This record gives sequence, structure tokens and C-alpha cells, in this order.
Amino acid sequence: MSMYVVGHKIPDSDSICGAIALAYLKNQIDEPAIPTRLGEVSPETQFILDKFGFEAPELKLSYAGEDVYIVDHTEKTQAPDDIDQARVVGVVDHHKLGDLTSSTPLECWIRPVGCSNTIIKMMYDFYSVEIPKDIAGIMMCAILSDTVIFKSPTCTTADIKCVEALAEIAGVEDFKELGMDMFHVKSAVEDTPARDLVMRDFKDFNMNGNLVGIGQLEVIDLAVFDDIKADLEADIAKLKTEGNRHSVFLLLTDIMKEGSEMLIVSDDANLVEQAYGVKPENDKVWLDGVLSRKKQVVPPLQDAFAKA
Amino acid sequence: MSMYVVGHKIPDSDSICGAIALAYLKNQIDEPAIPTRLGEVSPETQFILDKFGFEAPELKLSYAGEDVYIVDHTEKTQAPDDIDQARVVGVVDHHKLGDLTSSTPLECWIRPVGCSNTIIKMMYDFYSVEIPKDIAGIMMCAILSDTVIFKSPTCTTADIKCVEALAEIAGVEDFKELGMDMFHVKSAVEDTPARDLVMRDFKDFNMNGNLVGIGQLEVIDLAVFDDIKADLEADIAKLKTEGNRHSVFLLLTDIMKEGSEMLIVSDDANLVEQAYGVKPENDKVWLDGVLSRKKQVVPPLQDAFAKA
Repeated sequence: MSMYVVGHKIPDSDSICGAIALAYLKNQIDEPAIPTRLGEVSPETQFILDKFGFEAPELKLSYAGEDVYIVDHTEKTQAPDDIDQARVVGVVDHHKLGDLTSSTPLECWIRPVGCSNTIIKMMYDFYSVEIPKDIAGIMMCAILSDTVIFKSPTCTTADIKCVEALAEIAGVEDFKELGMDMFHVKSAVEDTPARDLVMRDFKDFNMNGNLVGIGQLEVIDLAVFDDIKADLEADIAKLKTEGNRHSVFLLLTDIMKEGSEMLIVSDDANLVEQAYGVKPENDKVWLDGVLSRKKQVVPPLQDAFAKA
Repeated sequence: MSMYVVGHKIPDSDSICGAIALAYLKNQIDEPAIPTRLGEVSPETQFILDKFGFEAPELKLSYAGEDVYIVDHTEKTQAPDDIDQARVVGVVDHHKLGDLTSSTPLECWIRPVGCSNTIIKMMYDFYSVEIPKDIAGIMMCAILSDTVIFKSPTCTTADIKCVEALAEIAGVEDFKELGMDMFHVKSAVEDTPARDLVMRDFKDFNMNGNLVGIGQLEVIDLAVFDDIKADLEADIAKLKTEGNRHSVFLLLTDIMKEGSEMLIVSDDANLVEQAYGVKPENDKVWLDGVLSRKKQVVPPLQDAFAKA
């Protein structure tokens, strides 16, 4: 029986490239594995797949009765809807430990590093499996994406060393240039419906019993949002109502200025000031130095919810 | 700030020896760590500590505001009572993934092997830290205990290889003999109050919303229970009421005959037949070949509860 290797809903490059890279590794050690995905491939990820000659993994939403290896999350809200009817055989992740559980003993490779693909590289090393050139390429790009080309506070020495090693295997001479090409693709927002932009990198969290959605758009210059910010604000208000969410936040992240503007719709907007120590005006706030949802946005908010 | 390294409530040898071994490793890699414990040391564990010249780790029940590295469990029922107010920085475990969560990214070394100390040995290898002779000794004993000297179905090739390597480091020539010495200590049940025996290796589980306690006593010959079985039965009935539990099961495991007699008190004893396919008589049932609570007892019961 094959296992499926799958990342989170609304997959990012780490989820897609990680599923491909981990499934390849598992097949090399005689554990048959098929990479799958839970949603559409983003333009950034498509750029990476095209660059190194991969097809997107098969779209597969139901896993009841199957063996599943989970990539890049441990939150049930981000997992397949029927994950409780699947057998979770493993997890590779770099986030806080969420509410996913398993019915049998499993393997978990979770490390506080910048990207799941950095941990997958450790797994290749552990099993002494050689990484093919094209797989090294997509793994490297996933790490450059998750760490915002090493600028994110989530980036660790392990991530940097891993990118350097993968770039050598992939034969990529200037990986920072490739990273900037990737972020240029990511910054193209014109002609895209507001909902598609909001959902491009959107995650739901359970915060002290409240459903909280947080989206993030990372671009090279926030000016790209000048004409569409009102649309984005209207759309997250809709999204909040549709999903019975307590709050929806959208982070507009400027990777060059290294900070994020947060757009806010919430049943209790005071939580934002409590979490970040700055007062929103007109349902917006600039969070200087904030690049990482995982490390800088979620934990203070979780604390604020816990105290509310 | 030091982290505390702590195993589960009602600690077994894996929890105590694992806390000592992992804290030592963390200190070697400049992450200050203090081993602690959540309860009394069992006679078997005391035998191991004495054999290799260790004091028991400090008894510490409260961890609010502290950094904690969790050993040998991911179930909240088995964790410190105030774990939600602590920061979980890591987990090493070999059970199914439970309901423990963390507020920040962490490291999890979870593998489907027979003992947490087998994984701790992998961590020593990963960090290239030499294992001192005495620490190798207690790690080896913990693995022999958890795998019932390799007889348990939870035992893997990794556990056997690990014991062989640790025996060489510890300078123990006949580790199977040492294992039998350990189980002789464990088999001494006379002059011990029934409650102490029931609680010696007792774990609570959340099964589909019901609190289910499962104790286990592993001995060399079930005849040691002949005179006290009625007392044990009376005591688990009391324990069920005191804790508002749905069920309490006590496994009397014969490691030589390789099977377990299960003593049963339950709001729905039919679940036992559904789980194991054998019908209890007089609130008891012999489960042939069953040595492992984790692998052979908990999963079928969890399935039966899920279907109930």
C-alpha cells in the first residue's frame, strides 16, 4: 500500500515541493509514496515547477482509509477534511505543534527551522539517499521562499547551509537572483480577483476556541496594492462572515522594507493592539520588521486570545 | 534560562532514564537542561539508577513559565498539569501523536520504535556527542524494559541495534541477563498495597471523549497475583469511581508466556469484546500474545470507542 505525501490546504511552495521531495525519498527507501496536493498551485510554485521540469502533484482531497504523510502543518484546519479517517504515518513540519493526532505510533520530524524542506534535506542525509539535481532545485526554492531569501526571522543557520548545499547539487550559481525572480512572480497581483489574492497564502487557526484566518501576500513593493486595497478589505470582511470567523487578518508584506501592513476585520480589534503594542487606525496597522506570520504574528495573537 | 526535561506522570524507566540522558546531551550542546520527574520512581527504575550510580531526577510538578522538553508522551493527561502555561520546546516520543500542543515552533523527535531512549541515541549520533558509560547503561536498561527484552511487538531492529551498541559502551557483557534481573525486581509484588501496584504503570487516555485508565504489571509469572487479584479488582473499581472514568483496565502481563490477563471495570464492557474479539468472563479476559499496551491494547480499544 502506497502512502500519500501531502502538504496543507492552500498549498505554498514548501507544501508542494516538500511533497515531491519527500515522496521521492520514501520511494528510494522502499516505502512507496505518492505526492499529492490539497489545492491550486500558486504562480510562485508554478514558476519553480516549470524551472526544474516538474508536473504539479495530483490534486486529491479525500484520504479516508489511506496512509498519509503530512508535510508543513499539524493543524487540523489545514489538513485534509477527512484526516481523522486516515492513518497519519508521519509528519515533517517547522511550525508550532497543533491539534493533529494519530491513531498509531508514527514518525515526526519537526524542527524550529525556516522551512520543511530544510528538514527533508536532513532526512535525505539520515537515510544517505542522494538528492537528484532537479529535486535539489525545488527544495532550494521552497527554502528561499519560506525564509524570504534569508530575511525572515524564522531563518536559521541550518536553512542557509541547506540552501548552499542544494544550490551546489542543483548547479544554481546565483540562488539569491533566482529567489528575487521568484518574488517578482509573487508580486504580480494585477488582473487577479481579490478573493484569489486573499486566499493565495491563507491559514485558519484555532485561537482559544475562535476561528481566526490569517492571509499573507509577500511582495517587493507595497505600491502594487494601491489600487486594490479597498477590494481586499471588502473581501476579508466577506470571508469573515462566510466562515463564521472571529477575525480575518491580511498581511501585506514588503520584503524590501521588511515589514507588513495588516488589514483587520475582527469581533474584537483591541486584540491586535494587545498582541503587537501598536494601535490600528482605519482597520489597518503597520508592523515594522514583521515578515513572519508563524513567528511574529501568530504567537502574540494566540497569547492575546488566551488572555481575553 | 534552563529547560526542564521531563517524562510522563507515573514515570517508567524510559521517562526517568530518558530525562537524564537527554538533559546530559542538551548540556553538551550548550542548551542548559535539568532532568525532572512527575512522580515516584518505580522499583525497577530504582534498580537501574542504583546499578549505574545515578540519583533520581528532582521531583517537580509545576512548570508554568518554564521551557520544557517532553519525554515519552504527547497526551495532555500524562503531561504536567500546568503544561499549557509552559513553553514546550521539544518532544521525544514513540507513541501515537496525542493532544499536546505548543505555542511556538519546537523540535519533535518521534519515531515508531520500541523506546524513547532509542531515539535519544539517534539524537546523540546526530549531534556527534559521545555517550558516557553510565548513561549508556541506563539508556540500554530503559530499552530492555520497554521492549520486554525484545519480546514486545513494538520492538524494532533499531531498538535491538541500539541496545547492542549501548551495551558495548556501558561494558555490559550479558544484557539479556541484566534485563531478566530487572524483570525479577519488577515481579516482586508482595507487601505492596493494591493501589501502588495498580498505579505503578498507569496511563489515562482520552478515547472519543471518555476518560479511560489502563494499568499494566509485567511479571515473570502470573502466579504472583494469585493471592491479591481480588484486591486489585476491588481497587480498579474504586479508581474508576474516584476519577469519573468510563473504564479502568489492568493488564497482568506474563512476559514468559507472552500474553496478558486483562481485569475490567467499565461502563460498557462490550467494548472489550469488540476491540479484541474475545469475550470476557467474570470481568477478566486472557489476551494471548498481547504484551504491548501501546501497540496491541490501545489502538483496538480506540477504534471500538470511535465506533460506539
